[in-house]
Amino acid sequence: MELQQKSAERRRRGLFVVEGHRELEHCVEAGYEVDTVFVCPSVCGELDLPQGCRVVEVTEQVYGRIAYRGTTEGIVAEVRARQLSLDDLLTDGSTEAPLFVVLESVEKPGNLGAVLRSADAAGATAVIVCDPLTDLYNPNLIRSSIGALFTVPTVACSSEECIRFLKGNGVQILTAQLQDSLPYYDTPMTQATAIVMGTEATGLSDQWRQAADRHIRIPMLGRLDSLNVSVSAAILMFEAVRQRQAS
Amino acid sequence: MELQQKSAERRRRGLFVVEGHRELEHCVEAGYEVDTVFVCPSVCGELDLPQGCRVVEVTEQVYGRIAYRGTTEGIVAEVRARQLSLDDLLTDGSTEAPLFVVLESVEKPGNLGAVLRSADAAGATAVIVCDPLTDLYNPNLIRSSIGALFTVPTVACSSEECIRFLKGNGVQILTAQLQDSLPYYDTPMTQATAIVMGTEATGLSDQWRQAADRHIRIPMLGRLDSLNVSVSAAILMFEAVRQRQAS
Repeated sequence: MELQQKSAERRRRGLFVVEGHRELEHCVEAGYEVDTVFVCPSVCGELDLPQGCRVVEVTEQVYGRIAYRGTTEGIVAEVRARQLSLDDLLTDGSTEAPLFVVLESVEKPGNLGAVLRSADAAGATAVIVCDPLTDLYNPNLIRSSIGALFTVPTVACSSEECIRFLKGNGVQILTAQLQDSLPYYDTPMTQATAIVMGTEATGLSDQWRQAADRHIRIPMLGRLDSLNVSVSAAILMFEAVRQRQAS
Repeated sequence: MELQQKSAERRRRGLFVVEGHRELEHCVEAGYEVDTVFVCPSVCGELDLPQGCRVVEVTEQVYGRIAYRGTTEGIVAEVRARQLSLDDLLTDGSTEAPLFVVLESVEKPGNLGAVLRSADAAGATAVIVCDPLTDLYNPNLIRSSIGALFTVPTVACSSEECIRFLKGNGVQILTAQLQDSLPYYDTPMTQATAIVMGTEATGLSDQWRQAADRHIRIPMLGRLDSLNVSVSAAILMFEAVRQRQAS
């Protein structure tokens, strides 16, 4: 479908595409409004469909054309996009020491999805994407997040807005960078914390380096000096989990 | 090339394919014997080519057909495969407390490559792949490892052989599993350690669970109860790094 191929089309219609049972279930549980469900009865079998949405039955042949992942699951939905903003975070006051993951200019939707999946596992408060080069409803992102886009609050904003938000809420800013940095495990993360990461290619902008309370690094003990951004994010988030469970 | 498409062809000819400057450099540094290099001068520019190998210049059109990743780098090589065995590990006695990562029946070459990349960063002694469902010279594996297949000793063997090797060398076996397990960060990893992981879908076999000295788990604090195997492996390996640096 055009909604899957083109982010401009997603913006214009205010809809995006969710594929697969589990992903759609998480999406509905998160309160998203489902517009239309396309089901292929010969593939997907019995279904609990969301209330109040339009249901279109399609043949296997048509389904094969509209589905992004092939015919494996037999269910695809058009869902109304819902843009969270920074003001929607920290509103219920229930989170004593929030843990944010901030990604600057992440370019690969698959990497962002993988970060979301790990953020779900680590119980992160939210993922904030600054100056994103991909839209949040990219199908590769949804797929690689295996639904975490719907279980973890995700906000897109500018770096300026994000820095103002974090400083205004007393959240310490830890930037991941190789220069002028301490090993991450020597850095306290039990208080309100934002872990900030740049792209694999160019790292973080000066703006973030200067806004940081501390610079942290993952020691590189091998030959390649390189970790995938979603792997780095997971190592850092789970260090916060470790410290918080131990404290 | 057929070598890239078919593992049977790779085994028959004893050769595999390496694409890209950096990957080939790591491969040569690791002592692999390069058989033939295909270069596309209009794409790759000046090159330091490995000594003693056959060099074939190809046009951009031909290069586009033989390259797996498209025309971005202009260099592809056929390299002689070299099968490491368990007997090749721990021979120099220089590693006081080796750290092994063991993957049972990993099925996706991209996941195995990603584990190798993290194993390089964590300075792991070796990655051992038990009863593998992919061959080690799969092009997706080499690509996602960004060359770590050549910087980290990688052995394929049966689970039985691996368990015998680990027990014979006094290496504690930590199996990652959700049942009957303790959080990984409460588990000492400063001694000789093997971190053993199963597939995302089915987990570890009973054989490994029974061979384990301890069962460890990564706490799942979200809704999805799911981490990518390469992310889990990285979190566990870097806990060993943390404990060893701190001790």
